[in-house]
Amino acid sequence: MSVYENRRKKLYNWMAEEGIALIMFEDIESRREPGIRWLTGQPGDALLFLSVEQHALLVPWDINLAMLFADADMLIPYNEFERNSIKALRGAAESLKIPSGSKLEIPSVTPYPLFLQYVEAFTDFDIVCRNAGAHQEVGELRAVKDEKEIEIYRHIATVTNGIIGLLEQHIRAGTLKTEEETALFIESESRKQGCEGMGFETLAAGPQRSFGIHTFPAYTGGDFAAQGLSILDFGVRYAGYTGDVTLTFARPPLTKAQERLITLTEKAYRLALNLIQNGMLTRTLGAAVDNLFKTAKKKMPHGLGHGIGLEAHEFPLFHNRTDNTWTFKPGMIFTLEPGLYDPIQGGCRLENDILLTESGAEVLTNARIIRL
Amino acid sequence: MSVYENRRKKLYNWMAEEGIALIMFEDIESRREPGIRWLTGQPGDALLFLSVEQHALLVPWDINLAMLFADADMLIPYNEFERNSIKALRGAAESLKIPSGSKLEIPSVTPYPLFLQYVEAFTDFDIVCRNAGAHQEVGELRAVKDEKEIEIYRHIATVTNGIIGLLEQHIRAGTLKTEEETALFIESESRKQGCEGMGFETLAAGPQRSFGIHTFPAYTGGDFAAQGLSILDFGVRYAGYTGDVTLTFARPPLTKAQERLITLTEKAYRLALNLIQNGMLTRTLGAAVDNLFKTAKKKMPHGLGHGIGLEAHEFPLFHNRTDNTWTFKPGMIFTLEPGLYDPIQGGCRLENDILLTESGAEVLTNARIIRL
Repeated sequence: MSVYENRRKKLYNWMAEEGIALIMFEDIESRREPGIRWLTGQPGDALLFLSVEQHALLVPWDINLAMLFADADMLIPYNEFERNSIKALRGAAESLKIPSGSKLEIPSVTPYPLFLQYVEAFTDFDIVCRNAGAHQEVGELRAVKDEKEIEIYRHIATVTNGIIGLLEQHIRAGTLKTEEETALFIESESRKQGCEGMGFETLAAGPQRSFGIHTFPAYTGGDFAAQGLSILDFGVRYAGYTGDVTLTFARPPLTKAQERLITLTEKAYRLALNLIQNGMLTRTLGAAVDNLFKTAKKKMPHGLGHGIGLEAHEFPLFHNRTDNTWTFKPGMIFTLEPGLYDPIQGGCRLENDILLTESGAEVLTNARIIRL
Repeated sequence: MSVYENRRKKLYNWMAEEGIALIMFEDIESRREPGIRWLTGQPGDALLFLSVEQHALLVPWDINLAMLFADADMLIPYNEFERNSIKALRGAAESLKIPSGSKLEIPSVTPYPLFLQYVEAFTDFDIVCRNAGAHQEVGELRAVKDEKEIEIYRHIATVTNGIIGLLEQHIRAGTLKTEEETALFIESESRKQGCEGMGFETLAAGPQRSFGIHTFPAYTGGDFAAQGLSILDFGVRYAGYTGDVTLTFARPPLTKAQERLITLTEKAYRLALNLIQNGMLTRTLGAAVDNLFKTAKKKMPHGLGHGIGLEAHEFPLFHNRTDNTWTFKPGMIFTLEPGLYDPIQGGCRLENDILLTESGAEVLTNARIIRL
């Protein structure tokens, strides 16, 4: 059984429990669904239909691409349904012989006006659209990585750490001087190592721009790693999966306030890493770090971390609100990224990729605050 | 009056006609809304609230960034609403003193389950969520570019044409040999010219991979512009706006079938450019090209073109279905991109950016099928 069939099998079992006859997943430009790649290997635009009778029908935009990459029981080009999702759902229900009156689950992100169109077009079925549904289930399944995925992340970490080493060398030697040179060096190195590219646009913010959480534009021709604090946030993408690390480069002389940003960020990072354990609520960790910063009269304007995988941000959640009931489990891969930002002093962030095993947290990547 | 106030003014007038008291726009990672940048200049994650009393409240994720870039009457950091859109909508209705019972319009892409939460939380207001609403109105307004935007596109065309010239030189000279070298050369050149980067991931497909409409991965270490047909699709992003051109490089000896793909693509491109005129339905153009290909027993697996602007694909629509009632109007900027793909022969696509003026189509960019 292929890794994809194995994953679909889990979902088929869930469908039987939930009484859902047919699920539709939709991966299109305006609403991405990486679950389709996770369930079939298909990397690009497509619809995927899974029946409780355990058949997988893929409806790709580009049939040639799907024939190379996709693992599914049936392929029908999206053109045959005039690239219309309602027609495709009707076609899938017919092809897969779904009895009328059954529950058909459509994506939870279906816009309300489109939802009304499905309901109108499928008076002979029961259209289901809900948050705690198939998309959520796939997201939860994806949060705990399988062996194949852990192997991919070990490779991502090797490539990332190699790039971090080269970056430090080149920046110390003065052969990478601007944000642009630094960002394009990473892009080029990652492709040389066989990566698909970057999981998100590399953020390289020199001292004048590092106050921004996500600097804009992502990088410019301006100085990088000049005097003060510079932030570099990147993630190589390999086999569909993305890494995500952030380094801070600190070039003296630094102000006392800049030294304090570094010390607090490193302290928060160590605190989080020491506290983490299987079974703990993820938000307990965020609360501990927020508390540490609060005592120092600082505030982190973003969450402490996030799951990574086929998306740069996926489960588990880390935010501090009480509706976050995620707990740490072996097999989870996520980032920890404490950071502080000041419009005058600049910003400081440290982010690494962590694998949680039965015996605790394993830090896969080697990002750090580098003093020049 | 700033260019942004001018644009908001159009929307305020529309709100008065529609009887909408408050509109919420939402630009977040999972649901992008470039209309916020169009209406305020704010480039990143934010909510925007517009009241019919003509006040603009921006709720940015990163307040420092907003203070540098945004044109709005009020700024409140999203953190003050715990980064929760329902709380932010409540806060905006209070700050802007919206009378209870008024119509509040939320984004048309609001997922159905989230829509239910808004309705439950706002029993004292009338929540509106519809396709033919504010998002659509902004999209339609954006389809006809103003003077400032046309000026931006003339600059984008200059940068693009410069890069096309350099690409041809380097590829003929053999100094760009792989997909990766070619794609990174474009990325680097665009930043040197002051661009924000690329509007979408550059697609560089050598002869082995050009059969894919959107090749995957976007580029690799493999040969580019080797014997056969290679496709290069890129768009520089400047001041938020993206160009979008596609070149095909044809290196002999070519098969008869490859020659035919080139001839048909060029013929389709010329046909479209000759037919186009103000007032014509956009789908008439697509139908003419489809018909030309059909006579030659070929089929184009994608639309003939698309509007460009703050997004790589925006209004006007070009697809051939009868529900597409878009007509060509002066001030529209869009691409024409006929293409044909064959799993064995490879693919051929030609795409340029067109500005429609009172006197007809002006081809801004200089992409072509280059025979090596």
